[in-house]
Amino acid sequence: MELFTYYRSTSSYRVRIALALKGLGYQALPVNLLKGEQRGAQYLALNPQGRVPALRTDDGELLVQSPAIIEYLEEQYPQPALLPASAEARAKVRGVAAIIGCDIHPLHNVSVLNQLRQLGHDEGQVNQWIAHWIGQGLAAVEQLIGEDGFCFGTAPGLADVYLIPQLYAAERFNTDLSGYPRIRRVAALAAEHPAFAKAHPANQPDTPAQ
Amino acid sequence: MELFTYYRSTSSYRVRIALALKGLGYQALPVNLLKGEQRGAQYLALNPQGRVPALRTDDGELLVQSPAIIEYLEEQYPQPALLPASAEARAKVRGVAAIIGCDIHPLHNVSVLNQLRQLGHDEGQVNQWIAHWIGQGLAAVEQLIGEDGFCFGTAPGLADVYLIPQLYAAERFNTDLSGYPRIRRVAALAAEHPAFAKAHPANQPDTPAQ
Repeated sequence: MELFTYYRSTSSYRVRIALALKGLGYQALPVNLLKGEQRGAQYLALNPQGRVPALRTDDGELLVQSPAIIEYLEEQYPQPALLPASAEARAKVRGVAAIIGCDIHPLHNVSVLNQLRQLGHDEGQVNQWIAHWIGQGLAAVEQLIGEDGFCFGTAPGLADVYLIPQLYAAERFNTDLSGYPRIRRVAALAAEHPAFAKAHPANQPDTPAQ
Repeated sequence: MELFTYYRSTSSYRVRIALALKGLGYQALPVNLLKGEQRGAQYLALNPQGRVPALRTDDGELLVQSPAIIEYLEEQYPQPALLPASAEARAKVRGVAAIIGCDIHPLHNVSVLNQLRQLGHDEGQVNQWIAHWIGQGLAAVEQLIGEDGFCFGTAPGLADVYLIPQLYAAERFNTDLSGYPRIRRVAALAAEHPAFAKAHPANQPDTPAQ
């Protein structure tokens, strides 16, 4: 498999965690978002939306959008499972993933922040905007995840795949996590886990030397 | 099953289409977003995020977030299927759903538009914001869906479940769809389909008399 990725992209980071948790090897094909490579003709011909991540499967098919790619990995490489067995338990895990994937991250995606800047907002207002959406979303996540272990149980799963990259973004934006002890517990567990380390933005082939 | 719903909510509308396509009966429990019922203590005790939709299953479990609820319905009530059989084909369908669910709709959710108004933007600027995100997202969808039938094939599926409510929103916001012939073809097919009619905002128990 080949993954079109950018080291600091939240949604690329999700897919990298899922690949690492399943022990799957892949070729990283970095797309430099700062240089605008995602809008180059070559990349747009592959992925008309011009976003990362995208996964080229072993059959040569190009898959886009991290939620779709992660569900594909779960179906194609079911072990270790990122989702529990029962349909209701799966829905609860996917619900937390969707709060992060639909109600938090899209609001502070770099394209949205640039749009706010174009509307004349200064960095103080942009940061307030970010803090509003991250705070509101994480407050809900805190109430929906379990009281020990990872988000749901002793092994990392789909909700953790979404939460940890969101916390990386929250840290970059200086979000106060003191009110979320469950989330901080999950973060501490992930920090000790080799798959999360492997997928971390600090450890990618396109991570700047400093 | 019981569905906490609001007639004009895009994500409630998605779940209603999925239920109708599968021929599943349910009790609609309207939550009036204009009156702020989603932030009332009673509803927040059920759903700490204070959003619709939420589905109470026959086992009494409350499921939140439309992507999670729809995947639950697909797993629990597999026929008729909203997703194709092969993992790669499923990922392509889910990719289009995710473009709409993560990159279009979250940017024009009523809470986001209210936030823009609080930042001092007038309705002209709010409408430009909406048009930007809907236009960018639908342009990608147009390139990814099939050349005839519904989004992917002759029967409606998950991508259509997301697309049709998005088009309802696009119409409210006066989006120009003339550049998207495939999307307009899908809209015309859905307009003739009884499940989409049943789920339409015009036909709900909480639809205002006028």
